[in-house]
Amino acid sequence: MSVSIFDSFLTTPDMIAVFDDQAIVQGMFRFEEALARSQAAEGLIPEAAARAIASVCNAQLYDIPALIVAGRRAGSLAIPLVKELTRTVALYDKDSATHVHWGSTSQDVIDTAMVLATREAMRLLDTGLESLAAQLLELASRHLDTPVLARTLMQPAQVTSFGFKLAGWAAPLVRARARLREAGARALQLQLGGAVGTLAVMGGQGQAVAQRMAGQLGLRAPDAAWHTQRDEWVRLGMEVAVLTGSLGKLATDLSLMAQGEIGELAEPSGGGRGGSSAMPHKRNPVSAMIALAAATRAPQHGATLLAAMGQQHERGLGNWQAELAAWPQLFLSAHGALHALNEAFGGLHIDSARMLRNIDALHGLVFAEAASIHLAAAIGRPAAHELLETLTREAAQSERDLAGLLQEAVSADKQLAARIDLDELAALFAPVQAAAPARRLAQEQLPALRRALAS
Amino acid sequence: MSVSIFDSFLTTPDMIAVFDDQAIVQGMFRFEEALARSQAAEGLIPEAAARAIASVCNAQLYDIPALIVAGRRAGSLAIPLVKELTRTVALYDKDSATHVHWGSTSQDVIDTAMVLATREAMRLLDTGLESLAAQLLELASRHLDTPVLARTLMQPAQVTSFGFKLAGWAAPLVRARARLREAGARALQLQLGGAVGTLAVMGGQGQAVAQRMAGQLGLRAPDAAWHTQRDEWVRLGMEVAVLTGSLGKLATDLSLMAQGEIGELAEPSGGGRGGSSAMPHKRNPVSAMIALAAATRAPQHGATLLAAMGQQHERGLGNWQAELAAWPQLFLSAHGALHALNEAFGGLHIDSARMLRNIDALHGLVFAEAASIHLAAAIGRPAAHELLETLTREAAQSERDLAGLLQEAVSADKQLAARIDLDELAALFAPVQAAAPARRLAQEQLPALRRALAS
Amino acid sequence: MSVSIFDSFLTTPDMIAVFDDQAIVQGMFRFEEALARSQAAEGLIPEAAARAIASVCNAQLYDIPALIVAGRRAGSLAIPLVKELTRTVALYDKDSATHVHWGSTSQDVIDTAMVLATREAMRLLDTGLESLAAQLLELASRHLDTPVLARTLMQPAQVTSFGFKLAGWAAPLVRARARLREAGARALQLQLGGAVGTLAVMGGQGQAVAQRMAGQLGLRAPDAAWHTQRDEWVRLGMEVAVLTGSLGKLATDLSLMAQGEIGELAEPSGGGRGGSSAMPHKRNPVSAMIALAAATRAPQHGATLLAAMGQQHERGLGNWQAELAAWPQLFLSAHGALHALNEAFGGLHIDSARMLRNIDALHGLVFAEAASIHLAAAIGRPAAHELLETLTREAAQSERDLAGLLQEAVSADKQLAARIDLDELAALFAPVQAAAPARRLAQEQLPALRRALAS
Amino acid sequence: MSVSIFDSFLTTPDMIAVFDDQAIVQGMFRFEEALARSQAAEGLIPEAAARAIASVCNAQLYDIPALIVAGRRAGSLAIPLVKELTRTVALYDKDSATHVHWGSTSQDVIDTAMVLATREAMRLLDTGLESLAAQLLELASRHLDTPVLARTLMQPAQVTSFGFKLAGWAAPLVRARARLREAGARALQLQLGGAVGTLAVMGGQGQAVAQRMAGQLGLRAPDAAWHTQRDEWVRLGMEVAVLTGSLGKLATDLSLMAQGEIGELAEPSGGGRGGSSAMPHKRNPVSAMIALAAATRAPQHGATLLAAMGQQHERGLGNWQAELAAWPQLFLSAHGALHALNEAFGGLHIDSARMLRNIDALHGLVFAEAASIHLAAAIGRPAAHELLETLTREAAQSERDLAGLLQEAVSADKQLAARIDLDELAALFAPVQAAAPARRLAQEQLPALRRALAS
Repeated sequence: MSVSIFDSFLTTPDMIAVFDDQAIVQGMFRFEEALARSQAAEGLIPEAAARAIASVCNAQLYDIPALIVAGRRAGSLAIPLVKELTRTVALYDKDSATHVHWGSTSQDVIDTAMVLATREAMRLLDTGLESLAAQLLELASRHLDTPVLARTLMQPAQVTSFGFKLAGWAAPLVRARARLREAGARALQLQLGGAVGTLAVMGGQGQAVAQRMAGQLGLRAPDAAWHTQRDEWVRLGMEVAVLTGSLGKLATDLSLMAQGEIGELAEPSGGGRGGSSAMPHKRNPVSAMIALAAATRAPQHGATLLAAMGQQHERGLGNWQAELAAWPQLFLSAHGALHALNEAFGGLHIDSARMLRNIDALHGLVFAEAASIHLAAAIGRPAAHELLETLTREAAQSERDLAGLLQEAVSADKQLAARIDLDELAALFAPVQAAAPARRLAQEQLPALRRALAS
Repeated sequence: MSVSIFDSFLTTPDMIAVFDDQAIVQGMFRFEEALARSQAAEGLIPEAAARAIASVCNAQLYDIPALIVAGRRAGSLAIPLVKELTRTVALYDKDSATHVHWGSTSQDVIDTAMVLATREAMRLLDTGLESLAAQLLELASRHLDTPVLARTLMQPAQVTSFGFKLAGWAAPLVRARARLREAGARALQLQLGGAVGTLAVMGGQGQAVAQRMAGQLGLRAPDAAWHTQRDEWVRLGMEVAVLTGSLGKLATDLSLMAQGEIGELAEPSGGGRGGSSAMPHKRNPVSAMIALAAATRAPQHGATLLAAMGQQHERGLGNWQAELAAWPQLFLSAHGALHALNEAFGGLHIDSARMLRNIDALHGLVFAEAASIHLAAAIGRPAAHELLETLTREAAQSERDLAGLLQEAVSADKQLAARIDLDELAALFAPVQAAAPARRLAQEQLPALRRALAS
Repeated sequence: MSVSIFDSFLTTPDMIAVFDDQAIVQGMFRFEEALARSQAAEGLIPEAAARAIASVCNAQLYDIPALIVAGRRAGSLAIPLVKELTRTVALYDKDSATHVHWGSTSQDVIDTAMVLATREAMRLLDTGLESLAAQLLELASRHLDTPVLARTLMQPAQVTSFGFKLAGWAAPLVRARARLREAGARALQLQLGGAVGTLAVMGGQGQAVAQRMAGQLGLRAPDAAWHTQRDEWVRLGMEVAVLTGSLGKLATDLSLMAQGEIGELAEPSGGGRGGSSAMPHKRNPVSAMIALAAATRAPQHGATLLAAMGQQHERGLGNWQAELAAWPQLFLSAHGALHALNEAFGGLHIDSARMLRNIDALHGLVFAEAASIHLAAAIGRPAAHELLETLTREAAQSERDLAGLLQEAVSADKQLAARIDLDELAALFAPVQAAAPARRLAQEQLPALRRALAS
Repeated sequence: MSVSIFDSFLTTPDMIAVFDDQAIVQGMFRFEEALARSQAAEGLIPEAAARAIASVCNAQLYDIPALIVAGRRAGSLAIPLVKELTRTVALYDKDSATHVHWGSTSQDVIDTAMVLATREAMRLLDTGLESLAAQLLELASRHLDTPVLARTLMQPAQVTSFGFKLAGWAAPLVRARARLREAGARALQLQLGGAVGTLAVMGGQGQAVAQRMAGQLGLRAPDAAWHTQRDEWVRLGMEVAVLTGSLGKLATDLSLMAQGEIGELAEPSGGGRGGSSAMPHKRNPVSAMIALAAATRAPQHGATLLAAMGQQHERGLGNWQAELAAWPQLFLSAHGALHALNEAFGGLHIDSARMLRNIDALHGLVFAEAASIHLAAAIGRPAAHELLETLTREAAQSERDLAGLLQEAVSADKQLAARIDLDELAALFAPVQAAAPARRLAQEQLPALRRALAS
């Protein structure tokens, strides 16, 4: 495994494989093969040379650890790789060997290999996002009428619909999927510039070679080599960082709702998941844990990409290399988080009875605003506000229910009693009714989210 | 000035004014005014109340430092502001006072004020970007035929065209302008959700109020309140961070080329700009300095926005507040950098003779690759490569010019002499010819960049 | 106010004053005065010149905003300040004016001014830390016997002593105070190097001047100018960042325990503190909010200091300036957090009855481990473990209390009944007894913490 | 290799081995062995059990990839490890198996394993620092009389001694070594707290067990479990980040002085080091590259540690795990940088002739300040300053040498000629004399630095 033990713990084998040594080196060979074939097609090198080169562009033929050791000395992994490729071609065909890597430069190979790996990484994220957003939207539809406490500044505030809350979690994921596709379409481009980005060696045919290579590799052909202009590339990284932020927001809420004392949600358990030998009552939210770990780290990985942008002249010293090392971390974290949350929502335990009990425990205080508005229609806002203020204070001190106190107050005052229907008043304290405005908003939003996800 | 002394030094008075206490508070009042007017239009509050409220929605009527002190206690600037607004309305009209801020919440006011300020900030960036990119493109056209060393890993590498280099600096700015507009179109949206994002108080009319308010304030109407789903907003911040990275890249190159020992570029001087009393020969690159300072800080400001995304439930505790405080920093830095570089390029001293001398000082070694390719056509790549390798080693050791050595070697070898035209060979060592491929690429790129900038 | 509106909201007027424009500029004048006086004492400049200079080293005599504007052009605030000081001295005494700032450089003045401000900032932090740690230790002594749930991975785990928890919060603050003093003793040093750090102008007397100046300003005399070797300075910044991390940890726990559904702690209320007009039942943890905002930002401010360390040669371009701008942010955040938590703990509502109820609500499951160990002494670990596993599962499913189930199981089994004393068994389920080990540890730790704090 | 391909490129095999999967898992087993042995010594478990456990505490007996997979499900690597250890002990001795990991918790094992690995990492850093600092001090002694340009804001400023510059690079490394030892002495402590940090299971013997374990493992015994109070640990990480910053400063200067156009320093070449196939004249500063890459990343790794400090209650959810994953990165980067710079300075090419030529190229302008001071003694500062200002302007415009212009000016003016000795004047323009003040400072500093390094 090519990540450290505590990294591997927080990501997925699939994403590890994407940025594996083997995969990166194979990507470099794919670049060399495409370069040779395209140059042959443009008549810049012989067809036979292209065939000879292509036949040995296979990572399995090479000693990757040795390439890494030599690369460290050389200052670039591409230098020993090109040397070994040249040597291997020369074993069979000395002339063809002189055409290896012709007119290209280390950064062309390495950046393109990174782009190829990233394309795979994007597919994994896309699939994971589709699945998680779909789960959330499905649950949202089912829970439109499930009242749950809305909480602001970590305090119970008012009642909302759990379906609305779920839609709120889904929406940024739907947006993230669309934005990642846009950013990918821009950033997943071939790198080809030659020594200093001018394609000088290939004469006037450099751009034609680039077009062909891009076609073969399924990448965008760049407007210009982007050796040291990394803006589109970094934007893609930022999208992954923003996605991880949204997953972290979801995991934050999940972890808060899964607290023993709140108990509204619980991650699936069983099969060694989230248990504790010493404490059999525990059901640890390990999916939230992984997503929160990702969200703790992603801002810094994003910052490293930004900090590495000041790449000097035509090839950066240190900053490009830092960017390369930081890049996979963003994808490893994001996919770990996405996978974990997919697992959590796949078997999420939703305790809607507990959601109701948590509302009830607040003695009706969360309905004070609704009651105040209702009364205002009858007695004006100032009087309504004053009455509710008095009663909520009383409710809080006496631990009596606001509904009852209000009922008493209305009954005791003839003027009020004449204007206020007690049944209507009672209805205001029904959680489902309190959740209705949120339900309405969710219903309006869900179709658009479903459509966006289907695209 | 509402920034610290060393911040103020690195930004512009214009951008300071955008996020000034006064401007933010006025933005909050604009929100309250638009809310009242829109609710009146929807029949939720009396027209008279809307007029009464609007008439005192003016920051100059209030004691802003006192609001800040009270806000610190309350945990939100909006709480004392709404209280003071209510009190002020009530001085004239008690009933209208009950309609202030109705159905809204602190975060609606504050976020919308921040959006309004940010719209102004975006205008400043857009103008600054247009101007800087235009300057660069203009210089690029003029310097297509100016040869300059391309440098990789901070070492002289080959010859390129200074016009191509300028186009390379301009391109990410042209992209940044387009992307900022896109991100702005998404992120500059009204915030309106009421206490927990459900618009509960306004019954079914909440969305209609939001539409009206957005129209009045010239903002996008949101699909949903984005109290704790900050992804579009953070994306806009990331765009500013990426822009600052591109400005830092430009400033890095500028500072390197302005070093006394390289001397290819110099910032304008005079009028107290970049001088040093003790060292009269100095011409400090103060514009590059400001842009580099911005690029040093922006990654962290970006990271703070990302780190603050995990906002709990329906209103974040601490993270939202951290985001608000970090947000202006990105714009202050970016505009400082943009302004400084506009100033630098407005009076940039370009020493093309020095560019040539720096090429000449390398004894023709930067032309070795071109010579090798030229010879290869005649004697095959292996022989050409071997010859050049020998001669470059000799040139480096003897400090003799490679052109001369090669001329001698060709003349001395009958076979070579027969196949190689000495004039053509000499031409390879002409910097302008060496810059031709870069010139060609630049010429291809410039029209598209100009078009993009004109849009 | 020289911080932005949302920054000012998260810090204290005292710390704002420390890094105010006025204070920084006055620090610069204190440097110039000490320089002149020390050079006069060493015979490098006339005594009369020193007196003339000192007499106008007063920030109130100068137009600070104008200095800032000129500094922006010059690339350094010190250049216009020295110019204005020279001009002012010259109004009265032309000769003395030539001795202003003699042998010094911009960075000497600015860094020393920053050191002087930082010394004040350190005093504020020290006082705030002493007060907060003392409050926590005092509460710890009072709550040694208060049982409270310990929670791991955000799930109830076992019972601990609230006094132990308080001691755990206090300990890092006691350490932070000691470390800040150590780091301060190293970092609060005079800056004096002249143009390039060699004190060249002052001949052999440079070090003697530095000694005198350090004495006058109450700072450490540096081993060497630290213009571009910022390690000790950055270490001090890192200490502040670590302190903020520890305050964030405390605020995290506080915010979690203050959740409505947990309700073990509440911040003081009243007087406009943390209330909500629309939701009268709310009691927002605004102190925790401020501390969490600080903890969200401090890592990035720390990162900026680290990122700015690569200062080129003898004076950094952009990075030094970035460091200066970031530096006050750390102190502003930290003091805001410290002040807020002092306020919170000054009036903290501790609901020990609720702490007990939260333990009770878990049906005795948190005592399973203790019971298992107790039984093991009688029947061996394997049998004890198996029995408890069965019973905890039963308790969880039936929502019956584990204590009762265990009592029944022991009574029903003759062998067990013979070996196990039912009273001893019952005692295991007493929260106070369960908290005893934590109480013991706290009692051991408290005296050392108190002693450390007293020093 | 347990790091990604582009990480492995920037670090050393030695440091990779320290944080390898194998090493971490072995550290976990060392904890379990020490725990069992210490508990047996205290009479808490049978001696036979301790022996049985110790006999299988060997990472080679276990399937580490399988542990990682299971750990991902469980939410902790320790859970499957303890399970497998228990199962393995039970194969031979069922009773002993019940004593495995007794009274401990996952975090005890994992944190202690990380501490053990970190101790090795610290040894590598200490050795590398000693060697690099020694090299720099040795070079400093040799180059006390080597004049070199001092540069401020990336512009030539004045002349200094290269030995002084070297001493300036060495000093922060000497300090870093001392500070790392101090921070290590505090942070390299055993973790032992049991489920919630109270050592509840071990009755009153918990602390005695901790003392024994600490002794066996050669670690400090903690005052209290530091499960969620990470301040001392994070401080150690910050020291590594600060060290990396100082290495980055050194690498920045090295890379600038190694630029082709400056050419004062060059990294060793040969053996595939830093070459470029296409550009035979290139000598890439690959050591500086690695150190700069480390310095680009370390601030963010430091920030992650700080950001992860807010660990909830008695065990963090997500943040602890993020810290574990980020921790090795700091050491990998720092050791990569240290190793690379040791290599660079081991074979550094110092071109003191070029240093002189770079001074000469400035037409004596860098001596203007010294000349002004010299003249001031004769004609007063105002007149001296004015004269020099005129002449430097003339020198800069005419590209004539200031020394000559000044000589002419003095000779042409009888009063001046009478007071000024032309030989003394000429001496001011001798680089070695200009470097003398710096030489003096270096000589004063070197003995203390050597002594500190020897300790």
